[in-house]
Amino acid sequence: MTDSWANSAADPPSAFGTDLHLELNGSGLRTGLMDALREAVRTGRLVSGTRLPSSRSLAADLGVARNTVANAYAELVAEGWLTARQGSGTRVARRAEPRRAAPAAPRTRPTRRRPTYSLVPGSPDLAAFPRTQWLAAARRALTAAPHDAFGRGDALGRVELRTVVADYLARARGVYADPERIVICSGFHHGLMLMAQALRARRVRAVAVESYGLDIHRGLLTDAGLRIPPLSVDERGTRTDDLAQLRGVGAVLLTPSHQFPTGVALHPDRRAAAVDWARATGGLILEDDYDGEFRYDRQPVGALQVLDPERVVYFGTASKSLVTGLRLGWMVLPEELVPEIVAAKGHGDWMTSALEQLTLAEFIASGAYERQVRSMRLRYRRRRDQLVAALAQSAPGIRVTGIAAGLHAVVELPRGTERSVVEAAAWLGLAVSGMARFRHDAADSGQRLPEQDALVVGYATPSDSAWAGALDALCRVLP
Amino acid sequence: MTDSWANSAADPPSAFGTDLHLELNGSGLRTGLMDALREAVRTGRLVSGTRLPSSRSLAADLGVARNTVANAYAELVAEGWLTARQGSGTRVARRAEPRRAAPAAPRTRPTRRRPTYSLVPGSPDLAAFPRTQWLAAARRALTAAPHDAFGRGDALGRVELRTVVADYLARARGVYADPERIVICSGFHHGLMLMAQALRARRVRAVAVESYGLDIHRGLLTDAGLRIPPLSVDERGTRTDDLAQLRGVGAVLLTPSHQFPTGVALHPDRRAAAVDWARATGGLILEDDYDGEFRYDRQPVGALQVLDPERVVYFGTASKSLVTGLRLGWMVLPEELVPEIVAAKGHGDWMTSALEQLTLAEFIASGAYERQVRSMRLRYRRRRDQLVAALAQSAPGIRVTGIAAGLHAVVELPRGTERSVVEAAAWLGLAVSGMARFRHDAADSGQRLPEQDALVVGYATPSDSAWAGALDALCRVLP
Repeated sequence: MTDSWANSAADPPSAFGTDLHLELNGSGLRTGLMDALREAVRTGRLVSGTRLPSSRSLAADLGVARNTVANAYAELVAEGWLTARQGSGTRVARRAEPRRAAPAAPRTRPTRRRPTYSLVPGSPDLAAFPRTQWLAAARRALTAAPHDAFGRGDALGRVELRTVVADYLARARGVYADPERIVICSGFHHGLMLMAQALRARRVRAVAVESYGLDIHRGLLTDAGLRIPPLSVDERGTRTDDLAQLRGVGAVLLTPSHQFPTGVALHPDRRAAAVDWARATGGLILEDDYDGEFRYDRQPVGALQVLDPERVVYFGTASKSLVTGLRLGWMVLPEELVPEIVAAKGHGDWMTSALEQLTLAEFIASGAYERQVRSMRLRYRRRRDQLVAALAQSAPGIRVTGIAAGLHAVVELPRGTERSVVEAAAWLGLAVSGMARFRHDAADSGQRLPEQDALVVGYATPSDSAWAGALDALCRVLP
Repeated sequence: MTDSWANSAADPPSAFGTDLHLELNGSGLRTGLMDALREAVRTGRLVSGTRLPSSRSLAADLGVARNTVANAYAELVAEGWLTARQGSGTRVARRAEPRRAAPAAPRTRPTRRRPTYSLVPGSPDLAAFPRTQWLAAARRALTAAPHDAFGRGDALGRVELRTVVADYLARARGVYADPERIVICSGFHHGLMLMAQALRARRVRAVAVESYGLDIHRGLLTDAGLRIPPLSVDERGTRTDDLAQLRGVGAVLLTPSHQFPTGVALHPDRRAAAVDWARATGGLILEDDYDGEFRYDRQPVGALQVLDPERVVYFGTASKSLVTGLRLGWMVLPEELVPEIVAAKGHGDWMTSALEQLTLAEFIASGAYERQVRSMRLRYRRRRDQLVAALAQSAPGIRVTGIAAGLHAVVELPRGTERSVVEAAAWLGLAVSGMARFRHDAADSGQRLPEQDALVVGYATPSDSAWAGALDALCRVLP
């Protein structure tokens, strides 16, 4: 470091205000300030209606006498650039048309017309988000938190949240959890990204995936440089017994409780096969328990993780139980994997808001989380029953499957009709997904895959007020 | 899809409760339930004090008669496994020692002893976070938001936030901003990660960096497979005039307003050199405006971005102006780069909470953000003045530089004393960083670099109540 690192020497000669960024020229302070303000209005940097700082505070910022600013303001008011009114301060007048578009008017980008109804799977009923209880939890959490809770925390995530999540998962999902093997992340997408990084660091080259699933997850894995050989899905769930025949696979991504989107639960034999494969090869099972809380029938399905907590990574989120806009999830890790995920996170909590972690911890600890899950379970179950009943009446030949759990159902269609039904629905203003869009690209090459034309109906997606209309539209497009 | 994808057929035979996960065996419902509860207590899945669901709701979940559950509870109370008290329900008794550690007691991991005072740079005063105003903004934002605001949004981020940020940046930082070229991210780390992905997709192999900076940022770039040739820093800031001599560099990461950590502002000639290089080579300038809001002296420095908005990516965050635990940042992008960053984001908002985006939008729109910045600017400026005065008195031979702006200062030390001063400070319970830890690994190989023993003193880090003690400790360790 040399002498002249002293800042004042190195500052550029042009002067700027800070809250109000102004470039003053040398021609006298008042004139310079007036020129700068005119220029800012002319170029649209200051849009009409913007309130200017008080003459006192701008004078302090610029290091000039208050009167200099007050006089400049007064002259610009006289010129019509600014307006001054008692009580509302000095503002930019409505006269000058800015060169650039006003910031409040976003440029039109090509967007699809919004459908009237959506039964696209993947979203809970956003209208049911318990705003008041969430705000109450935020208030309690933020009021009680020590100051240092607002800093960047432990790479594992806030201990308050990890503790209540461990407790909740043990109780509600039978997961073998411990706060020290839980890592908080910004939802499943972030968790899977961290996992992909850790797998790459282990020199894993391939992750087996289910032949049906979300293309965003497959894309994330391939973007990370991983191959994704598919495992086909049949009536007992994903064919984990085929894992042994795949070469160089270091992990398998599964949705054991309720395969997405087919809705089948992984049979105990297939669970055992997955765990046997993991033990024999040192591989990892990535368990995406995306809707495990929503099981309606007598025989709920526990998490696979408990079969071998040292070989299974359990992923859960608040995206289905609360709302997708809340980016909070948790991974329960084999003990040896914790430092690897911490390294993938950059040894710090760089992504996930501490404030929302504290709020969710309080929301769970207060019992509000489980009350919300219980209430939504009743509501979704009712919708599922209404869906089944409506279809039985209006399209009696059509089977509905995958309905023991979750937020979506599979509505089977006659062979060759899927695409035309999806298009007819779009014409009626109903957004709904065909089964084809969830199929692995490579799924039909060389592997025996049951293929069935079907709709994947997200019956949780509409609000209560839109539900009847959406269901009616669905019944009308079915053959 | 085959017939037997119908779920009930494929469910595993063991039965689980959902909110209370229980495995019932075949030996009669009541006996099975009792065995399952005993096992859950014995293995520590149900810790002592846990409140069990009411007999009615557990009965509904399991599909058994309420009396079956009530009787099982009563027998387990008699056996001492559970306790029942009027008004507080049925709970797990204190008798059984769980096999695993209670979830509330995290296993001890090796952690460093917490210092009494911290002057480590990079954090604002967390005690000054305006909790009440933030909660008020959250309440207004969440109450007013339409339901679909709680879904996963546009990959650019919430339009409410992009609109007010565009307006704020134009006004306060002179940035040429437009909501359609702003992308919201979870802080600078996330923004830089997206940028690194987009650069890799453009086949960029190297990003020039400043020879002093944060190793976490250098590590992020090298983890993304990018080379990071250093540019040395002198009294006019980073030597952007050397860019033309570097081979295969597609971008340069700079802190033009207040170089981190040396504190020097980039000279206008160097700004012009960076822009000339970018125009000549098609390269990009990544402007990390990490503390641009905190400028104390007469000659504040504007953002570099305005010199060429199509060649400069501007990064800002709420980490210094509010708190680091709030993971919210913004990138202002050249228009052609927007689709590439959207692709790097996975075409969706997978990381950044919609709720906090809405809250920050309301916080800025209400004027609370600028009030907070203004108030903290006064507070930090006062601390800076106290630091300079205290050092002038207790260590009159020592120069303090980089103090025209920001949340940290550079305290120069006699040659060869840096490490011993940092260690002496640690002995006194004061955490402070030496300049060496910010130096680029390759910085001293073959390049002329001014090297100066120094402390980087984060004077914003302590709370007001800890500030005097921290300053006193600092004065005592200086030679």
